[in-house]
Amino acid sequence: MSLMFLIYKKNGLLFSLGVYILREQNNRGGTNMKMIGDFIQTGDWKGEKHVPVIHMPENAKAGEQFKVKVSIGDAVGHPNTLEHHIVWFKIFFHGEGSKFPVEVANLNFSAHGEDDIFTDPVGEANITTDKPGTIYAISYCNIHGLWEDVIEVK
Amino acid sequence: MSLMFLIYKKNGLLFSLGVYILREQNNRGGTNMKMIGDFIQTGDWKGEKHVPVIHMPENAKAGEQFKVKVSIGDAVGHPNTLEHHIVWFKIFFHGEGSKFPVEVANLNFSAHGEDDIFTDPVGEANITTDKPGTIYAISYCNIHGLWEDVIEVK
Amino acid sequence: MSLMFLIYKKNGLLFSLGVYILREQNNRGGTNMKMIGDFIQTGDWKGEKHVPVIHMPENAKAGEQFKVKVSIGDAVGHPNTLEHHIVWFKIFFHGEGSKFPVEVANLNFSAHGEDDIFTDPVGEANITTDKPGTIYAISYCNIHGLWEDVIEVK
Amino acid sequence: MSLMFLIYKKNGLLFSLGVYILREQNNRGGTNMKMIGDFIQTGDWKGEKHVPVIHMPENAKAGEQFKVKVSIGDAVGHPNTLEHHIVWFKIFFHGEGSKFPVEVANLNFSAHGEDDIFTDPVGEANITTDKPGTIYAISYCNIHGLWEDVIEVK
Repeated sequence: MSLMFLIYKKNGLLFSLGVYILREQNNRGGTNMKMIGDFIQTGDWKGEKHVPVIHMPENAKAGEQFKVKVSIGDAVGHPNTLEHHIVWFKIFFHGEGSKFPVEVANLNFSAHGEDDIFTDPVGEANITTDKPGTIYAISYCNIHGLWEDVIEVK
Repeated sequence: MSLMFLIYKKNGLLFSLGVYILREQNNRGGTNMKMIGDFIQTGDWKGEKHVPVIHMPENAKAGEQFKVKVSIGDAVGHPNTLEHHIVWFKIFFHGEGSKFPVEVANLNFSAHGEDDIFTDPVGEANITTDKPGTIYAISYCNIHGLWEDVIEVK
Repeated sequence: MSLMFLIYKKNGLLFSLGVYILREQNNRGGTNMKMIGDFIQTGDWKGEKHVPVIHMPENAKAGEQFKVKVSIGDAVGHPNTLEHHIVWFKIFFHGEGSKFPVEVANLNFSAHGEDDIFTDPVGEANITTDKPGTIYAISYCNIHGLWEDVIEVK
Repeated sequence: MSLMFLIYKKNGLLFSLGVYILREQNNRGGTNMKMIGDFIQTGDWKGEKHVPVIHMPENAKAGEQFKVKVSIGDAVGHPNTLEHHIVWFKIFFHGEGSKFPVEVANLNFSAHGEDDIFTDPVGEANITTDKPGTIYAISYCNIHGLWEDVIEVK
């Protein structure tokens, strides 16, 4: 989407001189509208309870089946009530060199106190991929929206 | 739904004399129509690859969180192709003495060869319940329909 | 599942003398356990607000695409709050002579007051089928469980 | 996320000199990794068959219930086969001045030829919102990934 000529980077600031290709107009003609991706937040799960955490076995690698576990609130617990809870995780895989990500799993945590039953927001998916790439976990909190984590598969 | 006076049971046959309350008419007036529950099959997972298998820790009990794992094809592997695959599991819990079951989790296995990525139909849910009851796992195969397993929580 | 010799039917009671094949044992060995289908309720939507209502165009027929609309609470409104709401509809089609039903759509109504947004439990699916059969709509209320409606496609 | 000093814009190219705040590091420390939002594409649905199209009644407005219809391939039809199909739509609403978007509906089109049954990727949601805002529709094609449309509610 952008070509840029980097000049200087310091303390998280990037001084640049460049030429940019603007975001393509969507079919509503709005270039200033936020897109949904602008709302998918991330951060350090050690301090932010909404960030999903992808757990992969150390020896996970392309060409062999491995298990991805996704949890949330590992350091700071997230509430699990009717009023405030994690609704779902989605897991995507983007193969190195591929153009598009593929949805791997969609996990919904459905019970938040009904008849005193609770589902903890922890999920897993057993994946086989022939190529290295990147795993994305997206979580949705009914109050605080969309969050993501990302990890590489060698 | 039925009152019956049992007389004799032998080899899986039940000889009975009784009075039955017919299935309540649905709002379409059809008493002979099959209902969706009539299509939810079960069987012995050792011989039938479509039956989901609920795995619970031996010491799982009401009042403490426990993990339910659901797999399928434990004895006889199920295909995982675009043409023929397990699409989802649903997990329900029915509390002892409760009138209705509560959905605990809804797990979708989304990749069946797209970009050479495959999701194996294995899922888990971490559950907390205050009372004993019954866990149901339902699976859906895009070709062979709906199947279920059931297990008790003490 | 059962062979029965009918003797007399009156006012919704069926007096019978018969021989029955018991429900096949599931892999847990429990013949007395309820199965999930036993919890899928139906009734007359004019009096029961939980029964989903399938709306089909009068001229819907196999071989042409048609639209199925599913609503709920048509006569008696259903609450839509965090504490009590319709979570999802599933729609299945069972082709005449086919052994298994096929899932057509899975519709989740996700907002129940978050940021003052509400999704009404109404859904639709545009279906094409080559053969006549039966459409099933299943609904799930987080408090009152599973309900169904059924209608034939000629 | 970025401060920039614009100099010149022409033909979709933006010549700029500026200072940028880099994307915050995620908890994996990767500043160069793509995030999932980078894969959510958009475009003009008149030429691109993957862009979902949100249809709203002209008089839809905050404070009254209105129906959102989402379709795809309105100008250029999208295939509906086991190998290549639209799997789901998600609909979100972001209230003006709100910090997070709320999921309104999650619609899965499940049949792509099984037993000769097909579900067309068309969905709807009946929404009530107290405030103006923005509706997002996200679609997922099993081959070509994630796409979005966006429209404002006054």
